[in-house]
Order: sequence, then structure tokens, then C-alpha cells
Amino acid sequence: MKKNLWMITPLLGIVFIVSAVVIAAQETPEPRPQVVQGVFATLPDAAPEPEDNLSTPEKVVLGQMLYFEPRLSSSGVISCHTCHNLGLGGTDRLPTSLGHDFLTGGRNAPTVLNAAFFELQFWDARATGLEEQAEGPIQASVEMNAPADIAVDRIVRIEGYLPYFEAAFPGEENPITFENIVRAIAVFERTLITPNDALDRYLRGEIDALSEDAQRGMEIIVQVGCVACHNGAMLSTGSLMRFNHGEDMGRAVVTGEEADEYLFRVPTWRNISLTAPYFHDGSAETLEEAVRTMASVQLNRDLTDDEAYYILAFLNSLVGDLPEVTIPILPVD
Amino acid sequence: MKKNLWMITPLLGIVFIVSAVVIAAQETPEPRPQVVQGVFATLPDAAPEPEDNLSTPEKVVLGQMLYFEPRLSSSGVISCHTCHNLGLGGTDRLPTSLGHDFLTGGRNAPTVLNAAFFELQFWDARATGLEEQAEGPIQASVEMNAPADIAVDRIVRIEGYLPYFEAAFPGEENPITFENIVRAIAVFERTLITPNDALDRYLRGEIDALSEDAQRGMEIIVQVGCVACHNGAMLSTGSLMRFNHGEDMGRAVVTGEEADEYLFRVPTWRNISLTAPYFHDGSAETLEEAVRTMASVQLNRDLTDDEAYYILAFLNSLVGDLPEVTIPILPVD
Repeated sequence: MKKNLWMITPLLGIVFIVSAVVIAAQETPEPRPQVVQGVFATLPDAAPEPEDNLSTPEKVVLGQMLYFEPRLSSSGVISCHTCHNLGLGGTDRLPTSLGHDFLTGGRNAPTVLNAAFFELQFWDARATGLEEQAEGPIQASVEMNAPADIAVDRIVRIEGYLPYFEAAFPGEENPITFENIVRAIAVFERTLITPNDALDRYLRGEIDALSEDAQRGMEIIVQVGCVACHNGAMLSTGSLMRFNHGEDMGRAVVTGEEADEYLFRVPTWRNISLTAPYFHDGSAETLEEAVRTMASVQLNRDLTDDEAYYILAFLNSLVGDLPEVTIPILPVD
Repeated sequence: MKKNLWMITPLLGIVFIVSAVVIAAQETPEPRPQVVQGVFATLPDAAPEPEDNLSTPEKVVLGQMLYFEPRLSSSGVISCHTCHNLGLGGTDRLPTSLGHDFLTGGRNAPTVLNAAFFELQFWDARATGLEEQAEGPIQASVEMNAPADIAVDRIVRIEGYLPYFEAAFPGEENPITFENIVRAIAVFERTLITPNDALDRYLRGEIDALSEDAQRGMEIIVQVGCVACHNGAMLSTGSLMRFNHGEDMGRAVVTGEEADEYLFRVPTWRNISLTAPYFHDGSAETLEEAVRTMASVQLNRDLTDDEAYYILAFLNSLVGDLPEVTIPILPVD
């Protein structure tokens, strides 16, 4: 059911974009935020949140602790922040992440920055919402390797945590549960958003925020058709699209269905210049390599050097205000 | 030469402490900061710094980046902060640290907090000063595993670092050197100090800062003789003392000399309640276990439950103002 929706959304996008391209083709390369206004959108100042896990300051405080809590891993050295490093664009800048025992799950860590604007999580969209996402890496044997009961036991044993859980989940008799751990982490992650990049300012009418090169790149992106998948506030539909590249079967690994082979969630372009290497397998070392490969594989187009240059100028403009995060002092047992 | 000095310092301390104990024995358990003033000292507001690496704001900024820089490790996931976590009392709270490939060097990570007040670094005092200390873990095969030339090459390749090195080391033609990397890290680490704990406030005349239990514990510590090694501003002489416990030969591993067997640097008591487990091998899980073992092994004394209780009350009072550190945004290549 849901899968069908994911497939329809980008199709609707394409129809929409085709009209945009028609308009674009008729105009000269002057600043035209009104044209891309329908293609792209400004990143909202706040992320959407589920009704059953609304943000409170207490949840943010607790979630920030847990995000940086290496004792949530069986080794005691790996935290969410290990692979989603806020100093490195919310990633680890490795092709594929190293987890417990230096094992790898074979996929590139997607950025946590603005992840709150995606409904579907992971490259294969196997989780819905940040809460469900957070359940994965904590337990995965190649990541933090702490099954839910062990993770909870770890936190329970650290006596100093109880007051923070009581404050974040008032009225609950035993607030230290795996569900509440991932809830708090998700609420903290919803604060990790990066508004006000050059595109956002441009879309709000500050035309000079985007350089002329970047504006030219934006037009090429519309004309070439990248925006079929890379549109909206995230410059990504957030849905699954086929990318036949490498040996990873993508969504099909989860479902076992042939129709899901090579389906991967479209990554965001926000802060893309901070999050090399690229693709689900981290096989594209540079943004230029990623752009050229995508144009070739997805759009059957060999970009000229000029086109690549302008596109990169645009993509490099998408770094927003990065969150300032203080290392939380963690409770001791 | 230097080694002789390390041995003499605690002896002088003992002479000094004996007088203090004599005075202590004559008095009632009332607040007497003037008595322990000569035994303990307040932590200075600033750490001493070497003439050839004076602090500048630019060095602090760069050093903070490098302290959190996982790309200084061969794997790309281990930084200084991995084992010296500022959210965990400047340690990893593991018996022995996990480094590259999840290997361990077999020693407990000493806290980085206030490490700037120690001249000798590492459990076996094999480095002098924070600069030399920082050279070790970056290169050690069981820690970050990046030999100096590789570490430098990593940083050189990250173009965004150059301006920070130029600002921190002005006038140098090629400022990105291993020496400057460890210099900047050391300067940042000199900011990681924790003044104003309860003892400091007590010593400054704020008698109520230490609870009555803690004051009683302080007296017991003086009477029992712990202060022979645990005195001064760091509640540690910072020198090597014999601790025949376990199989680690301590200083002798470095020198190969029989006289150095089981010599370990006396750890600080500042923030000691944050840095479990204890001892060079992390074999004491709790502070009480550590205290009882030390009294027994070093002072041939079985502490009563009361004595242990009061000593712990004192030791738990030694958490100072922890530094608030923001995750630095690291340059990208």
C-alpha cells in the first residue's frame, strides 16, 4: 500500500517538474525564484513531530544525552554520534560505517541533519519515523550491538538517568524503556535541522544569496531533470527510487521482492557538500563523481564540464545553519 | 635524573603530611581549612603552559577541532574524544580502552580533565607535557593507529584546515606538521580544567561547601596517610609510586629496569567519582573497592565501614565545574 504511494509521489513530481522546465526554457538566466518556488521549498524552522511523541525541553535534554551515550552500545564506545557526527555534517564521512568490532553493515551512514523531515528512514526505507529508526543501530550486531533489553539494562544501572527519564516521561511508573529511549533520541534529532542556506534565502527573495553560478546550476538541474527526485524542502522526495549501481539490492534485501530490487531512498541535497562520500555504498568519493554518475545512470546524460561546474556551485550552496550542540555531561552509576 | 626527583617529591610530601597529621590529631573534628591548606591546594584557574607553546584563541579553536577529529585515526572513527570523553569525566569509563580494530592497550584511560596540571603523562610517565602525550595515542597501533606522516597527510588533504593552522601558527611556511597538531591539541586540553569543587571552596573559606561527612573523610584521609601521595592541587603528587597489583609492570615496561617495576603515576582525585573503573588496569569497579584496595595494599590498613563511608563522602565532593564544550564543525576536503 505505502509502497505504491512512494512510487506515485515522484511521478506526480515529474509531471509538476515538466511544467517548471517548460517555463524555465522560455526565460533568460535571470534570478527567478518564482520558478523554482514550486520545485524547491524552504526548509521549515521546525520539524514535524508525531502526536504521540511531542517535543518537550526535558525530552530534548535526555535525548541529547542518549545520542552521545556510548554505554548504549555493547562495547561502551559507540554512540549515535559515532556515525552521525555533528562535526562532520551528521555523518562519519566513511564509505560504509564501522560499528561493533569494526564490522560494517555495508551502507553509508545517511546524515542525521534534517532527517526529521523524512518520513521513511534508512536507505531501504525499512523504518518509518525517527523513533523506529533509532531502534535499528542500537541493536544491530554490526553497529552498537545492544539488543533492547541490554540497552535498557545499561541505562537502568546508571542511577543518574532516572530523574531525566521521569522528567521527560512524567507519570510513567517505569519510564526507562527502550521505547522511551528511542523517543527521546528522536526528539533530540528533530532539533538537528539546518535552515537558512543560500537556497532558502534565495527562495525568500534574497536573490543574491545564491551566486550566479549557483543559479545557473539550479536551472541546469531543472532542465536536466534531477528535480524529478530531488525537489521540495529536502531536495528529495524522500521516496524509494531505482538506482542500479553496485551489488546492494536495496529495498529487496528487506522484502525479498524482485520489484524492490535496487530501490533506495532518494538522499537529501541539504548539506550535501559536507557528507562525502556518496551513494548507499559510499562509492562516489566526490560530489562531482556522484553528480556525473547520477546524470549518466539515471538520466542517460553525460554532463559537460560546464554543466557539472554549475551544478556543483548550486549543490555547494546548500549548507544551512548547523546546530550548535554542547557535549552533554552524562550521568554516572 | 628526573626519576630521582619523582621519588624525592613524595618523600618530602610525607614529611610535610606527618606534621599535618600531628596537628590534625590534636584537634576536634571541626572545620579546619587551615590544616589541610598545606596538604591540599585549590586548583588554579588556569593551567601552566610551556613557553614554546603559549595559548592563543586560534590554537584553542584548532586544538578543539583536532581533539574531536576522527580522521586523525587510520580508521576515521576514533578521536581523542573517543577515549577521553568530556561527557564521561574525560575518560571512557571502560576498564581498558578500545582502540583501532577494537584492540586494547591494556591500560585504563586517565582523565583529560586537569591533565594539564600534571607534568608527567601516561600511567608510566613516559611522556612529559601534554604535547608529547598527544603524540602517543594518535600513532599507537592499538589506539588511533595513524603514524605521524599519515596523520599529517590526512589533515593536509582536508583543505579547510589550512587557514586554521595558519591562524594558530602564524608565519610558518608549512604550518600543518605533526608537532603543530599535538601543540594545538595540548593548548585545547589546557582549557579542560575543573575549578571550584567543594574542596576548593572549602579551602577558600566556604566551610559549608564540604559536608560534615566529607570533612570527616578528609580528616581520615590525612590520618590514614593517603595524602602522602594524594596531596596538592591535584590531590596527587603526579609522580611515580609503586603499586604492586596485577601483572602490569608499569614504568619497567618502558625502561626495562627492575627498579621501575610496578611504578605508576599517582592518579588525581579531582572528579574521581566520574571516572570509574579505577587503577591502571581498570580492575576496581567502584570507588569504594579502589579505596579499600589502596588502604590495604599501600597502607596495610583494613578500613572500617565508617572510614570508607566518610572517605567516599570526601572523594565524591571533588567534582568541579566541568567545561562546556561545543562540538566543533570540522572542515571538509
